[in-house]
Amino acid sequence: MMINEMNQEECRAFLASASLGRLGCSLDNQPYVVPIYFVYELDYIYVLSTFGQKTDWMRANPQVCLEVDEITTQSQWVSVIANGRYQELPEPQFTAEREHARALLGKRYRWWQNALAERELRLGNDSITSLFFRLHIDSTTGLRAIGEPAERDEKRG
Amino acid sequence: MMINEMNQEECRAFLASASLGRLGCSLDNQPYVVPIYFVYELDYIYVLSTFGQKTDWMRANPQVCLEVDEITTQSQWVSVIANGRYQELPEPQFTAEREHARALLGKRYRWWQNALAERELRLGNDSITSLFFRLHIDSTTGLRAIGEPAERDEKRG
Repeated sequence: MMINEMNQEECRAFLASASLGRLGCSLDNQPYVVPIYFVYELDYIYVLSTFGQKTDWMRANPQVCLEVDEITTQSQWVSVIANGRYQELPEPQFTAEREHARALLGKRYRWWQNALAERELRLGNDSITSLFFRLHIDSTTGLRAIGEPAERDEKRG
Repeated sequence: MMINEMNQEECRAFLASASLGRLGCSLDNQPYVVPIYFVYELDYIYVLSTFGQKTDWMRANPQVCLEVDEITTQSQWVSVIANGRYQELPEPQFTAEREHARALLGKRYRWWQNALAERELRLGNDSITSLFFRLHIDSTTGLRAIGEPAERDEKRG
């Protein structure tokens, strides 16, 4: 197995091609990790989310880490890590950014937004409310593992 | 989409059936997330790892979060989060635990251990050394989303 470092351009291209990642935040030295769907554009990761522990924690400590991977086998994988900062997009200060986030996410996740809207409708707006946020990416690192042919054939993982 | 909380037993059963997770650690309020292969047994998550940022950070702050999921679509998924503490298994204090970890991991990841051993051989023991560690699980929480039939058919993710 060979493990190669990816450069900034390769990391960004990988983020642009992905839609699912694991978001890490932390509070008082306790980390917390959740899966999120996102859209990457330029220096930002855009997310539509419900309020909960992760948004509470990111409000208190905006330092985050997004891990995005594609794991085929234990010797054939890509893993990119983006460190960044949480930024909420409330109205009216961020109306333009919200609209941009809505358009980007809507293109990829239209039915999911519909499902969320239906849930809100069923449960009442007070119990489930959604928000848009984005992560400003400060740095990325990435590793790509390329297995030996013999390992690649042995698909276990 | 219906989202149900999983009880302790369901969370543990899910961890036992899984082998890949995302480990979150943090240092000075900066989170860090990496994919890991593991074996769960009773209250522990056993891992064979190389030394690096995650082991440095977990030595400094043993509080960790392991997220394990199975995401079929955006409305059909399971996500379990285990909070716990990092514990290294050095010799000679933990010889029995090391042997137990080696046996557990060896059953599932034999070829990977071989690959790691080969890498060590090629590069010399100084450049890549592996270690066994385990995470003592303090608490688990889990969510299971079950999409509406119409959503389940529309496999977009």
